[in-house]
Amino acid sequence: MNTSPPQTPHEASPQPDEATALARAAAQAMWSTDRASQALGMQILEVGPGMARISMTVRADMTNGHGMCHGGYMFLLADSTFAFACNSHNLKMVAASAEVHFVAPAREGDTLTAEGREQHRAGRSGLYDVRVTDQTGRTVALFRGKSAAIGGAVIPGTEPPPGKARD
Amino acid sequence: MNTSPPQTPHEASPQPDEATALARAAAQAMWSTDRASQALGMQILEVGPGMARISMTVRADMTNGHGMCHGGYMFLLADSTFAFACNSHNLKMVAASAEVHFVAPAREGDTLTAEGREQHRAGRSGLYDVRVTDQTGRTVALFRGKSAAIGGAVIPGTEPPPGKARD
Amino acid sequence: MNTSPPQTPHEASPQPDEATALARAAAQAMWSTDRASQALGMQILEVGPGMARISMTVRADMTNGHGMCHGGYMFLLADSTFAFACNSHNLKMVAASAEVHFVAPAREGDTLTAEGREQHRAGRSGLYDVRVTDQTGRTVALFRGKSAAIGGAVIPGTEPPPGKARD
Amino acid sequence: MNTSPPQTPHEASPQPDEATALARAAAQAMWSTDRASQALGMQILEVGPGMARISMTVRADMTNGHGMCHGGYMFLLADSTFAFACNSHNLKMVAASAEVHFVAPAREGDTLTAEGREQHRAGRSGLYDVRVTDQTGRTVALFRGKSAAIGGAVIPGTEPPPGKARD
Repeated sequence: MNTSPPQTPHEASPQPDEATALARAAAQAMWSTDRASQALGMQILEVGPGMARISMTVRADMTNGHGMCHGGYMFLLADSTFAFACNSHNLKMVAASAEVHFVAPAREGDTLTAEGREQHRAGRSGLYDVRVTDQTGRTVALFRGKSAAIGGAVIPGTEPPPGKARD
Repeated sequence: MNTSPPQTPHEASPQPDEATALARAAAQAMWSTDRASQALGMQILEVGPGMARISMTVRADMTNGHGMCHGGYMFLLADSTFAFACNSHNLKMVAASAEVHFVAPAREGDTLTAEGREQHRAGRSGLYDVRVTDQTGRTVALFRGKSAAIGGAVIPGTEPPPGKARD
Repeated sequence: MNTSPPQTPHEASPQPDEATALARAAAQAMWSTDRASQALGMQILEVGPGMARISMTVRADMTNGHGMCHGGYMFLLADSTFAFACNSHNLKMVAASAEVHFVAPAREGDTLTAEGREQHRAGRSGLYDVRVTDQTGRTVALFRGKSAAIGGAVIPGTEPPPGKARD
Repeated sequence: MNTSPPQTPHEASPQPDEATALARAAAQAMWSTDRASQALGMQILEVGPGMARISMTVRADMTNGHGMCHGGYMFLLADSTFAFACNSHNLKMVAASAEVHFVAPAREGDTLTAEGREQHRAGRSGLYDVRVTDQTGRTVALFRGKSAAIGGAVIPGTEPPPGKARD
C-alpha cells in the first residue's frame, strides 16, 4: 500500500507507519457517525496521511431525469473521499469550497472509485484533488476541494499533535 | 410570480407566458424520471425561463461525521435546481462543471431552499448561479454551474425551437 | 449612482452615504499604491459598499498567441475589481481563490468594463461576483472571487470599525 | 527530461520523441505571436506532450495595493503555462474556464515557476493542473484550467493529426 503522495512530501510528518495508523483511526472515528456515506453504500478501500480511496455503486435512486447518475452523487462520493483525506491528520476539517468537472457519464450499476490526495496544506487550510473513475478505469469526474480547520481532533479523547493545533 | 431574471433579459425569447409554460412542461418531463431528486424529497417551488426554486429538508441520513448536513447534499440540491433552470428552455442540458462555496452549516431538520438563475447563455452552453438558504433566510451555500447541450429536447415528442438546435 | 447590491441588503451597515464615502476613501488609498492596476491603464468608474466598476482597454501587449486578449488580462481586470469591492469596507482583504469562465473573446482596442458585487460576507471572508463586458455590452467573462481578511484597515491611520475587526 | 504525466498515459499517442518534438514546434509557433507572455518576461523552461514549465520574475509594476504580487499576475503565469500545455498536441485550444487558489504571497523580485500537466483529455476539451512555486520551492498558487478546441492547428501549414480533428 503506497500512501505517500508523490508530489507533496511532508518531511516534518511523523513516521509513515504512525501517520498511517493515525489516518486509519481518524477514518474509523469519522465513519462511525457518517450516516450519509454509510447510507450510500460507500466502501473505504484505503486511507493514509492526506489520502483516501472510496468506492460506491450507482443505484437506481441515484439517477436523474436524463437516465444517468446524478452529478450530485458523483460529487458526494468525491466529497466524502476529500473529507476522509483531509481529516486524516486528526485535525477536524470541513469543506470550504469545491469544484468539480464532469467529464463522462456514469450509469446505474457502475461502480465508481474516488481517489483523493493532498496537494497543499498550510496553516488551517488544505487543498485536495479527487479523481473519480468507473469500473473500467475511465475518469468520470475530477474534483478539487479546499478544507478549513474548525478546531479540535477527529478521534474522540485525543488532542491535536503538539504545534499543529493552531497557527 | 416573477420569473424573469433581473440582470439577464432575453429580448429574443418568446413571450413570458409561453416561456414560462415551456419551462413548466420541461420541468414536469424531467421530474417524472428524476429518481434522485424524488428520493431526496425535493419540492419544486417555482420554475421559469432560466430559473428554478427547489426545497429539501435535511434528513438524518444526510448528516456526516461532524454531525452536520453533508456538503454533498447541499450540492445535490443546488445541482438539481441548476438542472431544472438550465433545461427550462426545452434543450437537453447536462452539467459540465460546478463550483460550490459552503458558507454556513446546516443541520438535520433544516429546510433548505435553492434558487437558481441564468447568468449567461450562448451557443451550446450556459452559466447558472444558485443560492441555497435555510428556513431562516441565511445563506448556507453559493453554487455556480456550467451547462452543456447534449442535443435533443427535454419534453418527449417536441423538437428544439427552430434555429436553436445547433450553433 | 446606485451602489446598493439588490440581492444582498446589509441592514446593519452604516448609512449609505457614510458607507459610500468609506468605500471611496478605501479605493483612493488602495489605488495610490496599486502599481499593477495603474500600469494597465485601468479606470475606476464607481465604488460603493461591496461593489466596484472598473474599465480597461485591451492593448497590443495584452494579446496572446491566438491573436486575442490573453485570458489572464481579463482575469486581472476582474481581480482588481473584486479587490476594490471587497476592500470597500475598510478591512484589508486579499483574494483566497477565484474562478473565471471565459464566454466570448476580446480583441486589441476593445474597452472592457468589470462590475463586481458582494454576494455574501460573514466573519473574515466574502464572496464577490464580477461580470466583464465589452464596449457593446456583450459579456466576455464571469468571475467569482473569495476574499480573506488579513487584519488591519485599508485607509492608513484608521482602525477597523468597532466589532468588525475580528470574529 | 521526463515529459509523460505519470497518471495519464496516452497509449494512442505518437512516440514520445515525436510528441515532444511536436510540442516544441507548437510552443515555438505560439510564442512568436504571444505578445502578452513575451512582454511579461516569461521564460519557457520546458514543453512536452500535455505539459509546460514557465518562469517569470515579479516586477514592481506587478504589485498591488497591499505591496504584494497582484494575484492576477500569478494567474497570468499559470494561464500561459496552461496554454502551452494544452496546445502542445498541435490542436488549437483556448481556456474555457479556470480556478485558482492563492496559498502564499509573492513579492517584487521573486522568480515564480509554473508547471502544468494534463489531467484529462477527451473529445474537444481537456483539464490541466498548474502549480506555481517561488524560488525557494514554496507553492504560492494552484490553478486548474479547462481547455476547449476552436478548430485548426497551432503550427501554421500543418493539419490536425488524422482522426483527431473532430469527434
